[in-house]
Amino acid sequence: MPTFPYQQLFSFTERVFLALGCPPDDATLATETLLSADLRGVDSHGVARLSGYVRLWEAGRINARPRVGIAHETPSTATVDGDGGLGLVVGPKAMRIALAKAEQVGSGWVAVKNSNHFGIAGYHAMLALAQDMIGLAMTNASPLVAPTYSLERLLGTNPIAVAVPAGEQPDFVLDMATTTAANGKLEIAQRKHLPIPEGWAQDAQGQPSTDANAVKNGGALQPLGGATGSHKGYGLGAVVDIFSAVLSGANYGPWVPPFVAFLQPSANPVGAGLGHFFGAMRVDAFRPTAEFKAHMDNWITTFRQAQAVPGKQVLIPGDPERATAAHRLLEGIPLLEAVVTDLESVGAKLGVQL
Amino acid sequence: MPTFPYQQLFSFTERVFLALGCPPDDATLATETLLSADLRGVDSHGVARLSGYVRLWEAGRINARPRVGIAHETPSTATVDGDGGLGLVVGPKAMRIALAKAEQVGSGWVAVKNSNHFGIAGYHAMLALAQDMIGLAMTNASPLVAPTYSLERLLGTNPIAVAVPAGEQPDFVLDMATTTAANGKLEIAQRKHLPIPEGWAQDAQGQPSTDANAVKNGGALQPLGGATGSHKGYGLGAVVDIFSAVLSGANYGPWVPPFVAFLQPSANPVGAGLGHFFGAMRVDAFRPTAEFKAHMDNWITTFRQAQAVPGKQVLIPGDPERATAAHRLLEGIPLLEAVVTDLESVGAKLGVQL
Repeated sequence: MPTFPYQQLFSFTERVFLALGCPPDDATLATETLLSADLRGVDSHGVARLSGYVRLWEAGRINARPRVGIAHETPSTATVDGDGGLGLVVGPKAMRIALAKAEQVGSGWVAVKNSNHFGIAGYHAMLALAQDMIGLAMTNASPLVAPTYSLERLLGTNPIAVAVPAGEQPDFVLDMATTTAANGKLEIAQRKHLPIPEGWAQDAQGQPSTDANAVKNGGALQPLGGATGSHKGYGLGAVVDIFSAVLSGANYGPWVPPFVAFLQPSANPVGAGLGHFFGAMRVDAFRPTAEFKAHMDNWITTFRQAQAVPGKQVLIPGDPERATAAHRLLEGIPLLEAVVTDLESVGAKLGVQL
Repeated sequence: MPTFPYQQLFSFTERVFLALGCPPDDATLATETLLSADLRGVDSHGVARLSGYVRLWEAGRINARPRVGIAHETPSTATVDGDGGLGLVVGPKAMRIALAKAEQVGSGWVAVKNSNHFGIAGYHAMLALAQDMIGLAMTNASPLVAPTYSLERLLGTNPIAVAVPAGEQPDFVLDMATTTAANGKLEIAQRKHLPIPEGWAQDAQGQPSTDANAVKNGGALQPLGGATGSHKGYGLGAVVDIFSAVLSGANYGPWVPPFVAFLQPSANPVGAGLGHFFGAMRVDAFRPTAEFKAHMDNWITTFRQAQAVPGKQVLIPGDPERATAAHRLLEGIPLLEAVVTDLESVGAKLGVQL
């Protein structure tokens, strides 16, 4: 697989966003947000999606120069209007508002409407860490998931991320879709003509399926929890949808606009764009920071050192992604040939060299 | 199964708590909290546990007259010291602090240490509904769950509850353990000599098990997510543990004190008692309440009316529990013979008639 230095992809992506008309600061911010996925090994959410964002912009569905503003607020909360901008830009700007509120009154909670896909949830939650805060981020997404017993797709993979600072130990970073598997994993199985494990997807009749094409052929992704627990993943995905969109005034459930430009958004939207939800809590709003960090270190060490199944180790959320990021910063980011071709064609269209 | 009117169980339980020395208001509050589980059909967490609380009190591990107080606070956050009281009393008192802060600054977030088991998480989250707020509640619990790859039990079933007010439609109430199944379900299978589904438990070697006695025999409950997704349930349970205990100064992970009085708490605790975490957000801190409720109604109706697998219906979180509560308020609460005997013996000891 061809491999690219992070800086090369950064420079290319930044120039693409500039070519769309993003102000320089926004282009840099969007690039950092997008490429955090490639660094952390979430290849489905990184530069592979750049052409998707460009096509949405071509279709007039992304505003390259949004005025991200507060629509409503209290000392600890805000509703932010993303003005149709890139979620990659709207997200961090909204998270900064949450952080500023936490600085003032202990915690900050921001619901966002009129936005678009924001990359990986973990990036936004991690913005809290440098300020010794706990960060939360969630977003709704295009409907691909059937609630328990449903034949219809009503929810997105609606991820939840929580980042918690530690002391000597690396930070705790949970970043998870509320489905058993991301759609990207089905796409990989499709390409390799492999079956998928039970619990990932259902067919058009709502029956569990091991066919990697099940979702494509009228089925749906299943919520986290498998055969006897999918009502829990459905409930979590529902909370993400409600916090991100019903609270903010964005589209929810089946109305969430599709990411792919060839599918039209609903003609009768129930809100504006898609929605996110962010939270920040100052650690020292609860107990002294040094004390908290010492106990986080103890928590992490205790779990990491637990007796494990032979050949395995208990991991801390964030461990695999951090290892990938360290490796890829040094060794470069591998991209599928198809992604490289796609990037080259985006670049050619906008006069930007990879 | 013998069935008891709610009022009869209420009066009995209240007199038991009074006999322990609880002040009258606390006895009433503890009873309401505990019996909300029986009403809502979570039989494992209701009056069946009354004798367990009494035994903890006998062992000097529950303070019947706690001074629940704020140890630290900011305008939107607080750390509450439960003073070793019943979680059934400490929980609602801490949630009231969260609600008061939300009234003032839009949201309120309270971490609690030095508490004990608080009944069902849903009860506490639902306290927000009457004030048109969104409520959150979580708690850590005695270690029964093995993180992914672990042979050791390091987490409790660590539930998360989220309550969201609606308008014409009934409220949305998610209340879920972060395991695939509660321990109570294994106990039922044990009694009936039935196997359990894969994904619920592992044996002492960390292998998936369908033996209902697996946990008893050195195994552990598995986190939500099954064979390919248990790292997500582990991550959620970990967040609950960190928010409830590392943030508050309670015991976490393997140090959480056992509920059963015959097991001793750790001789080297890392904090005080067990921990909870509560949140409250005013809906109108984000958008006008009437607007929000109209959209919640639309959300609920859309999901409820989705095309479903033949013979099934898409449920809204809280639907089954609300139906059970309505039925049991009218028809009474069924109790296993063993539970009745247990209550009678508790009553005899304390001079209280069932």
